[in-house]
Amino acid sequence: LTPLRIIPVAGLPEVTAGADLAALLHAAIQRLQLRPAETDVIVVTQKVVSKSEGRVVRLEAVTAGPEARRVAEQTGFEPRHVQVILNESVRVVRVARQVLITETRHGFVCANAGVDRSNAGSRDQLVLLPIDPDASAARLRAELGRLMGVSPGVVISDSFGRAWREGQVDVAIGAAGVNCLADYRGSRDGEGYQLHGTMLATGDELASAAELVMRKLDRVPAALVQGLDVRGDGDARVLRRDPALDLFR
Amino acid sequence: LTPLRIIPVAGLPEVTAGADLAALLHAAIQRLQLRPAETDVIVVTQKVVSKSEGRVVRLEAVTAGPEARRVAEQTGFEPRHVQVILNESVRVVRVARQVLITETRHGFVCANAGVDRSNAGSRDQLVLLPIDPDASAARLRAELGRLMGVSPGVVISDSFGRAWREGQVDVAIGAAGVNCLADYRGSRDGEGYQLHGTMLATGDELASAAELVMRKLDRVPAALVQGLDVRGDGDARVLRRDPALDLFR
Repeated sequence: LTPLRIIPVAGLPEVTAGADLAALLHAAIQRLQLRPAETDVIVVTQKVVSKSEGRVVRLEAVTAGPEARRVAEQTGFEPRHVQVILNESVRVVRVARQVLITETRHGFVCANAGVDRSNAGSRDQLVLLPIDPDASAARLRAELGRLMGVSPGVVISDSFGRAWREGQVDVAIGAAGVNCLADYRGSRDGEGYQLHGTMLATGDELASAAELVMRKLDRVPAALVQGLDVRGDGDARVLRRDPALDLFR
Repeated sequence: LTPLRIIPVAGLPEVTAGADLAALLHAAIQRLQLRPAETDVIVVTQKVVSKSEGRVVRLEAVTAGPEARRVAEQTGFEPRHVQVILNESVRVVRVARQVLITETRHGFVCANAGVDRSNAGSRDQLVLLPIDPDASAARLRAELGRLMGVSPGVVISDSFGRAWREGQVDVAIGAAGVNCLADYRGSRDGEGYQLHGTMLATGDELASAAELVMRKLDRVPAALVQGLDVRGDGDARVLRRDPALDLFR
């Protein structure tokens, strides 16, 4: 039984549109003298992936329509911010004071359609989720593979709230080369022969584990997870529940 | 920036009612030649905590009442199993074929009120959640502290399903000496000065991280997390959303 090691990948510069994220990550990994293996997983936060892909909207460039103005009234949010959230959504799931939970075009149910607002000096910008986070992860994995000579798995993480529980946890919104959903159905454990009816959301647990070394305050947009072999063909789409089977939508 | 290490604590015998769980964990930790520090966290699965506390019911000792028989019909579950789930619950949240989500007496919203069924030979037994998982964690921490001379934090974990996402992840149902909910509200990050409105569910992320080295099949009921200082007075109660603020109950 080997320990799991999660190493923060620090030292990246600010990531802007068009940045070569794979090259920046590779350089940071080299500076830290890390030697990733095929069985490792690199967890990267959504924010730097989105920024490198130019998924950024300037608030001043947005005009709020009637629905956005109505929802802004209900939530207390900025109407243009709400407009961008609605643009990213197919449906509003819950709306209340300071709460706007929607279903995104990808099928994520989360606060604000994953749209983050950040203020840098006079710039007031919104960072959107990648258009296809699994495709982003696959691209990043291929580029890292070319640069490093080995191809660890890639998970793209974002912080989501949960029903019934306080606080956010990081989950996998995109992945490549990782078996994100481990199927233990029909298996039996050693102790007491319990029959499991369980699927384990490995992708989400990797994202949560990596968050513990990244936290929000530090400029650490990635972490290298070593000591676990969760290789697979899978992407993170398997973690989105089919709306037809969902009891809480 | 230090790496996080998560070490599986293997080698415990089968845990039964009245077992001295702290002594068993201490012996396993010594055999592995681990030296826990005050800043470490020991994550222990609910199952061994419950078993050591005798929170086990023999299925044959249960009689199903009319409500249990009706819910058994709807779910396809064993009526006596349903009776035990209902005994542990204050409210049924969702019921469907193969699905029974309730709110437990503690305030957890989860499948089957956290009641696991296991079959060992002719014994058919149900393992219930601890009556007060935070108190269980505090007791375990105090006993480990006496045995080891240092008092790492303790998290008691269980696998919960989620709304909107497939697969289960481990969450913290009990804790002692750990700041389970990190408050980043009002803080600003380094990159782009994003103002966070975020609380991070550190306790749940620790449980999920530990699950990655425990998995279901191995007889590994605990893990030692090193390299992270999340000390605090907190328990895991802070992770249960106040029903009055909950939009999905």
